[in-house]
Amino acid sequence: MDPQASLLLIGLILKERLGHLATLRNGAPMVSMTLYMPERDFSAFYVHVSRLAWHTQDMLQDARVALSISATDDRRADPFTLMRVTIRGDALNLPNEGPEFSRLKTRWLERFPAQAINFELADFSFWKIAPRDARFVAGFGAIHNISAQELARIA
Amino acid sequence: MDPQASLLLIGLILKERLGHLATLRNGAPMVSMTLYMPERDFSAFYVHVSRLAWHTQDMLQDARVALSISATDDRRADPFTLMRVTIRGDALNLPNEGPEFSRLKTRWLERFPAQAINFELADFSFWKIAPRDARFVAGFGAIHNISAQELARIA
Repeated sequence: MDPQASLLLIGLILKERLGHLATLRNGAPMVSMTLYMPERDFSAFYVHVSRLAWHTQDMLQDARVALSISATDDRRADPFTLMRVTIRGDALNLPNEGPEFSRLKTRWLERFPAQAINFELADFSFWKIAPRDARFVAGFGAIHNISAQELARIA
Repeated sequence: MDPQASLLLIGLILKERLGHLATLRNGAPMVSMTLYMPERDFSAFYVHVSRLAWHTQDMLQDARVALSISATDDRRADPFTLMRVTIRGDALNLPNEGPEFSRLKTRWLERFPAQAINFELADFSFWKIAPRDARFVAGFGAIHNISAQELARIA
């Protein structure tokens, strides 16, 4: 991917806060909105979700997920030109203890201060999405298929 | 669903333009951003997509989809409170001719005038998503599971 496209993708991932998480539910595709946090080197993407949520139940059954991050609709004439990326990979449930949990919690609360309440609830935990690949649409016809290695290299 | 929640859902579906479409790709979940148009009575949701796009290839293999529509991120303190709905159903490819095509094309171009170019390309066509059910998150903990019948009744 050329340097300009890489910069666009970095900007997209760092600027946005909402993702749409696709999971497998009883063998059928499901998707729901979630908040995400990228690892600094884009080697992982985290979500902090309740065990009561459908997507969490789905990930417990099948770890395969896809996370789509799209530019916020700025009401431009042609919204089809908005940038978006889909990251495909496997999701791993992380324990609610230990130094890695503390690091993620600190970063999560810096990013989403109003989410502190969810750390008081026993049913919430982090899931780590390890990318397998990504598909970046930088605009009409400008599609880049990139590997997890390439994704981590541009960060 | 109570009348206030119904009004919120109507407002969400009518105001937004971007959806995230989940499909099954080689047995794994996939999701990508797309533009959508609701039928006036919410009995169907349409996308106009290229046969070259992954989601179109996926729908040709397996009609089951989920379409998520989320409120635009207004940079509020807690984005987890943003409304979102996921509509699950089956997608049907529509022909590029006939009165129904003309009606949809007219409405699509009223909604997305800059998309006229795509009607000159032979690989684009409409897909009709017939809802099976919908899951509406009106805010933290305010989750409504509704049937296709209920969805059409509130429109």
